[in-house]
Amino acid sequence: MNKPLILVTNDDGITARGIASLVEAVKSFGDLVVIAPDKPQSGMGHAITVNNLLRLDKAEVFAGTDCYACSGTPVDCVKLAIYHVMHRKPDLVVSGVNHGSNASTNVLYSGTMSAAVEGALEGIPAIGFSLCDHRGEADFEASKQVIKKVVTTVLDKKLPENVCLNVNIPKGKPGDIKGLKICRQAKAFWDDKFDRRQDMFGRDYFWLTGEFRNYDGGEDTDIWALNNNYVSVVPIQFDMTAYHALSHLHYWNNIE
Amino acid sequence: MNKPLILVTNDDGITARGIASLVEAVKSFGDLVVIAPDKPQSGMGHAITVNNLLRLDKAEVFAGTDCYACSGTPVDCVKLAIYHVMHRKPDLVVSGVNHGSNASTNVLYSGTMSAAVEGALEGIPAIGFSLCDHRGEADFEASKQVIKKVVTTVLDKKLPENVCLNVNIPKGKPGDIKGLKICRQAKAFWDDKFDRRQDMFGRDYFWLTGEFRNYDGGEDTDIWALNNNYVSVVPIQFDMTAYHALSHLHYWNNIE
Repeated sequence: MNKPLILVTNDDGITARGIASLVEAVKSFGDLVVIAPDKPQSGMGHAITVNNLLRLDKAEVFAGTDCYACSGTPVDCVKLAIYHVMHRKPDLVVSGVNHGSNASTNVLYSGTMSAAVEGALEGIPAIGFSLCDHRGEADFEASKQVIKKVVTTVLDKKLPENVCLNVNIPKGKPGDIKGLKICRQAKAFWDDKFDRRQDMFGRDYFWLTGEFRNYDGGEDTDIWALNNNYVSVVPIQFDMTAYHALSHLHYWNNIE
Repeated sequence: MNKPLILVTNDDGITARGIASLVEAVKSFGDLVVIAPDKPQSGMGHAITVNNLLRLDKAEVFAGTDCYACSGTPVDCVKLAIYHVMHRKPDLVVSGVNHGSNASTNVLYSGTMSAAVEGALEGIPAIGFSLCDHRGEADFEASKQVIKKVVTTVLDKKLPENVCLNVNIPKGKPGDIKGLKICRQAKAFWDDKFDRRQDMFGRDYFWLTGEFRNYDGGEDTDIWALNNNYVSVVPIQFDMTAYHALSHLHYWNNIE
C-alpha cells in the first residue's frame, strides 16, 4: 500500500509554532501536503472566500514537504488542497495545533475545527488539534505525543463516515496527562464584552473580549475532561438539524 | 406587555434589497434595531473578528428604526447588538433575506444563518430567511408574506430552547408556494472548482466556483421541499457532537 497522503492546515497561519509541531508529529506517517493561511485566521469559523480572489503561493517552510501559503480561510485551504493542488482526496486531514482551546461551542467559531469539518464534508477522516494554552511560548511536547497516538488510531481504525474529531489537549508536561476521553460538547458559552477605545481622531472602535462560562455539570463533557487533565476527543458531525425539535414543530406543516 | 424588541441583521450588507424586504415585513411586529454589515459578508459562516477592531456607525437607512452599520461579520453584529447596543437580549433575531439558498449544508457557510445560530446560542428565538434567487432583481413579495407568517408563529408559539430556524423560500410569485414544510437538512454538498485566472502581472489567482449536488433521496429534506415549491423550515441546533459515534468510539478511552 502507498503511504497515506496527509493534508496539514491550521488557522493561526503557516508560520505559527503549532503547525510546526503538527508537521513534526505527523511527518513519519505519510506524504504531507501543507496548505495553510498566509496570516492568522483565528475565529474564522466555516468562512469561505466567495467575494474575493484567492492566492496560493509555494512556500519553503517545512523541509521535505510540499508546502503552500494561501490568502484565504482554513476552509479555503482544504478546498484548494482537494480541488486544485492534490486533484484527489487526501487520506487524512489534520488541522492545528491551535494556540488555545477549541472545546465546547468554540467548535463553531474555530477555523482550526472548521477545516476538519470541511474534511468530514468531503468524507475524509479529519482531526483538529488544539492546545489549551494561548501563549506564544506554549509547550507542544505533550501535544506531539497525543497527535501521534490519535493519528495512529485513526489511520488504523478509521472514523465513522462524515465524522471528524475535535481533540483538545490540556496545558502541561506529557506526564501530567491522564489519558484520552471520548466526550460530548459541553454546554458552555461566551459572555462577551466589548472594550470601547478611541483612535487618534477620537473615533470609537470596539474590541471583542469576554469570558467563557461553563453551564454544564456533566462528567461526559470536553470541559470536564480538560479540567481533569484528560485529552478531550469529541466526535463532530455537520448535520445541524435539531432532530429533537422536529416532532414538536410538526404543526408548522398545517399553517395556512 | 411591551412590544417585542427585534434585532434585524443579514450577511449581504445593510444596503442589500433583502434586508429592506425583511425590515418591511417585520416592522409592524415590534421595535426594530437593525445592525448589519457595512459590506457584503456572504460565506462568512460563524466567523468573528478576534484579530482586528470593530467599527459600529449609526446609519440612516430605514426610517423609524435604530440602525447601525458594522465593519464585522454577521455574528459580530449579533454580539455587538446584545452586549453593546441593546444591553439586553432582544425577543427575536431575524436575519436575511439572503440573496440565494441556504438550504442543506449551506447552513455551515452562511453568514445569514450563523447570525441566527448566534441568537440560539444566546437563548433567543432566531430565524434566518433566504430566497432561492441570487439575482439583484429578485422578487421578494412572496418572501415578505412568508416572513410575516413565520414571525407570527414564532412570537406566538415560541421555539424550543437553543433552536433557530433555517427558512428557505422558493423562487416565484406568492401564489406559487404550496405551504411550509418542517424538514431536516439534506445530505447535499458542493463539488468545488477553482477557476485559475491571471492578474496584469501574469500572476495566478483563483476564484471559487462549483456545483451544489444533492445525494439525498429523502422526501423529508429541505432540498425536496424547495424542489416541490414548499418553503423549507429546518430547526437548527449548535451541538455538533456526533452522538451516534460516541459508543462506537468508546474504545478510545482505553488507549494507553
